[in-house]
Amino acid sequence: MSFIRNAWYVAGWSSAFGEALSPLEITGQRLVMFRASDGRVIALEDRCPHRLLPLSKGKRIGDTVQCGYHGMTFDSAGKCVRVPGQTNLPSSAYVDAFPVEDRHGIVWIWMGEPERANPDDIFDLPQFSDPGWHVHHGGQLHIRAHYLNVAENLVDPAHVSFVHPTTLGNSASENVPVHVSTSGDVLRAWRWIRDAPPIGFFQKFGGFSGNVDRWHYYDLHMPSTAVIDFGSIATEEACPEEERDRGVRIFALHFVTPVTEDYTIDHWMHLRNTAQGDDAASDQMDAMFRVAFDEDKQVLEAIHAEEQRPQKRKPIRIAIDKAPNVYRKRIRDLIEAERTEDLGAPEGPAYVMHD
Amino acid sequence: MSFIRNAWYVAGWSSAFGEALSPLEITGQRLVMFRASDGRVIALEDRCPHRLLPLSKGKRIGDTVQCGYHGMTFDSAGKCVRVPGQTNLPSSAYVDAFPVEDRHGIVWIWMGEPERANPDDIFDLPQFSDPGWHVHHGGQLHIRAHYLNVAENLVDPAHVSFVHPTTLGNSASENVPVHVSTSGDVLRAWRWIRDAPPIGFFQKFGGFSGNVDRWHYYDLHMPSTAVIDFGSIATEEACPEEERDRGVRIFALHFVTPVTEDYTIDHWMHLRNTAQGDDAASDQMDAMFRVAFDEDKQVLEAIHAEEQRPQKRKPIRIAIDKAPNVYRKRIRDLIEAERTEDLGAPEGPAYVMHD
Amino acid sequence: MSFIRNAWYVAGWSSAFGEALSPLEITGQRLVMFRASDGRVIALEDRCPHRLLPLSKGKRIGDTVQCGYHGMTFDSAGKCVRVPGQTNLPSSAYVDAFPVEDRHGIVWIWMGEPERANPDDIFDLPQFSDPGWHVHHGGQLHIRAHYLNVAENLVDPAHVSFVHPTTLGNSASENVPVHVSTSGDVLRAWRWIRDAPPIGFFQKFGGFSGNVDRWHYYDLHMPSTAVIDFGSIATEEACPEEERDRGVRIFALHFVTPVTEDYTIDHWMHLRNTAQGDDAASDQMDAMFRVAFDEDKQVLEAIHAEEQRPQKRKPIRIAIDKAPNVYRKRIRDLIEAERTEDLGAPEGPAYVMHD
Repeated sequence: MSFIRNAWYVAGWSSAFGEALSPLEITGQRLVMFRASDGRVIALEDRCPHRLLPLSKGKRIGDTVQCGYHGMTFDSAGKCVRVPGQTNLPSSAYVDAFPVEDRHGIVWIWMGEPERANPDDIFDLPQFSDPGWHVHHGGQLHIRAHYLNVAENLVDPAHVSFVHPTTLGNSASENVPVHVSTSGDVLRAWRWIRDAPPIGFFQKFGGFSGNVDRWHYYDLHMPSTAVIDFGSIATEEACPEEERDRGVRIFALHFVTPVTEDYTIDHWMHLRNTAQGDDAASDQMDAMFRVAFDEDKQVLEAIHAEEQRPQKRKPIRIAIDKAPNVYRKRIRDLIEAERTEDLGAPEGPAYVMHD
Repeated sequence: MSFIRNAWYVAGWSSAFGEALSPLEITGQRLVMFRASDGRVIALEDRCPHRLLPLSKGKRIGDTVQCGYHGMTFDSAGKCVRVPGQTNLPSSAYVDAFPVEDRHGIVWIWMGEPERANPDDIFDLPQFSDPGWHVHHGGQLHIRAHYLNVAENLVDPAHVSFVHPTTLGNSASENVPVHVSTSGDVLRAWRWIRDAPPIGFFQKFGGFSGNVDRWHYYDLHMPSTAVIDFGSIATEEACPEEERDRGVRIFALHFVTPVTEDYTIDHWMHLRNTAQGDDAASDQMDAMFRVAFDEDKQVLEAIHAEEQRPQKRKPIRIAIDKAPNVYRKRIRDLIEAERTEDLGAPEGPAYVMHD
Repeated sequence: MSFIRNAWYVAGWSSAFGEALSPLEITGQRLVMFRASDGRVIALEDRCPHRLLPLSKGKRIGDTVQCGYHGMTFDSAGKCVRVPGQTNLPSSAYVDAFPVEDRHGIVWIWMGEPERANPDDIFDLPQFSDPGWHVHHGGQLHIRAHYLNVAENLVDPAHVSFVHPTTLGNSASENVPVHVSTSGDVLRAWRWIRDAPPIGFFQKFGGFSGNVDRWHYYDLHMPSTAVIDFGSIATEEACPEEERDRGVRIFALHFVTPVTEDYTIDHWMHLRNTAQGDDAASDQMDAMFRVAFDEDKQVLEAIHAEEQRPQKRKPIRIAIDKAPNVYRKRIRDLIEAERTEDLGAPEGPAYVMHD
């Protein structure tokens, strides 16, 4: 098991959740989700405790869910409120309920112990609420691969020149070293490629013709939210690192949600300080991102298939693996912490199911 | 292994067996079946003992079957009668043969020890031969589910209101208690729903407009033959239980045949005391049954898939599970009896292969 | 594991290998193959030792292969010649390289220890270079079956009457005994069917109308190259065995390549002393062979599926299994020899990778 359970994961864009019962699987747990009459998004274990029929095959009765086999009915906290044919409601008749938060158009779900869920821990970015930034929800990429490989790929600048040579990278960066640092639960890999031709993306959206300074900051928030701050500015501007807003700047976000050990969904979106309110630009960026992300998907699915095959010898690690190596170690430590009783865990506000 | 081997199972309607070699699988045993020149249906192990080619890939030579690889040939009792390239016929050159009976248009096969097969044990119903009853062979339902779940569903009146709300049930019965009794190898669950609107089926075929008394008797003959005696009569008739023939009465039969642990075939048919010789009525009833049985199939296949997944906690049992619980216990006892040597088994007439 | 590793296998016809990186799997080993600028065919392990991406997903840079993920680059001997982001090239950064030879339009690959590869051991036939013989490359048959069953079928004359009754056999041979002998690494099964009607093949290509003497010599070169020398001559010619060239004679070759334990490719071709340079005859023969080989495929795939199922009792062996039995024993001995250290192995010329 390689899932961190005590974490907020993205279940989907807010627009994906309405009246209908919709099934979903996260960290190997099947869920039935729906939006209650008061607007909250509800997530319950998708299995009736009686004969195991997924509740998503049943129907909503108000804000309760009625099983489609024998009519056992559960409220939005998972408690059984009806057993046809009897009046007593045994305490073991329940389904698990999962804390959910809906913010900035994104629905987050906590897959671990409910009492440890703290909404303050949900990923945020000041630019979400800054009118100077255009926020655009992109799409979701389904990948037959392990989520750690998907997330690692997002803190790995070295692959860009080889996997995305026509969109997000070019050969100028092939040998530019990558810096790695950590801060709290964020791992950062970054580099500047100075005085080089613009990559395809910034030829198109930056209007650059001459050489540019280009930056890539890959921030990976544990366990699997990636923020890629990338941009370009004309080389003659001699832009210092901390003044990146002067250039064309993009925050590309990837919310990597483990579905099973073999399947991952990456919800991707971006924020930008250019082309505000320009839907055509959003569409064009989405199109270019889709090309690039499909390139990642091809690589990640091929690797996943290969990882299932017998290994004759140990894989090797090389200099560019610095950030991925740190990431793997952090994940191993988090899993170990979940496997043992952590008496020193922070005593944050307990999460209360609103019901 | 959850199969009862010493039992008669339905292999198919009689019309399904002709000259051609047809492969079939029952209780995980692959069979080749055909109708011999004297009209008997023959069932042999579908695997040549030499190089394992299924005999159903070979061809008939008279009433023998010749393997399609090297021509070894077996008679209708499974004995090898030819080995090309040699004259001696070793005694270990044989395939298993299975007792078969053809009755009322239904072909039954015995999957256990041949010497225990007693044709008198085959399921029968007096109405099969009663001219006052119309007999109609319906169809066969293929279900990716375990046969015990399929059979259990047929002794479970409580699901009808929720799974078949427009055809075989309605909300009037949701809270009507179910009685359970056993008699010999028959388990019965039943209830009367008194003075309620007719269900879809009897609106259509009973011509009822006012309230009716409706009965459902679910008889499950071990291991997996279900007889559902259901009907309706106008409430003002004040019909006692034993005079059900006065109403519109149907015997819906389900012959549940385990194919593998993951696949089941349900041959279904009915007998009725109304609309005799009316093929259009038969077709309409089949259509309505098909809607209902497809609803069962959806539920049963979803449950089967869920049962293959990890179980975090024990399923719960509730009041309406009384008949299913008795059924499961009976099946466990039968399996246990087959696993141990039962010196007290009845000394019925031995079954002799007619050959 | 049932693969002989120290053996030359056919990877494909020479025409199949060009500039492009093409993936292939032999004895469970995935390979990337291409033709280098000097004409040699190169075969490398198809897995980057870094993150396991198949190299066949990367691209050629001259005669090297660059991984499609992070640009690690390997030369035609499998040695790493570039690691982007660092200057040192660790010795553990390599992929296995496999000896390859290209002869008579056929590409052979050695799957075992490279130092034992001796090109002199590659299968040859004097007729390949004899202008009196027409050489025709046929096709490749993909079979979901174990290679030992495929190869065994090629040293088993007894199946021909039953599997190929209209093309390669007829009932005249059903009871004609088969002789078996061995010579070095060649196992031979053979028989003459004297004074019988010609089979379909020789009706078509021999122009025979009266009875013929027909021969079949099945030579199986260990581990899995089959040479079927078959032909016919008018019975009145009274042809002795050693003068087969007087008749219409065909060498049908089958190069049986194990892909996995469940998949085999049979490259088939023929040489003939009739209809030289007659492409129409080649096409017609191919068409007839395709009919026959598809008959084998049906049988072999059905057997393979059956072999995966539970076995209640031991398969039986019969008189006609003599050659298959010898073949299986030889294979078992070869596997055993590979599993143990064979200090008595011949000291043939060592194979040197040309690089």
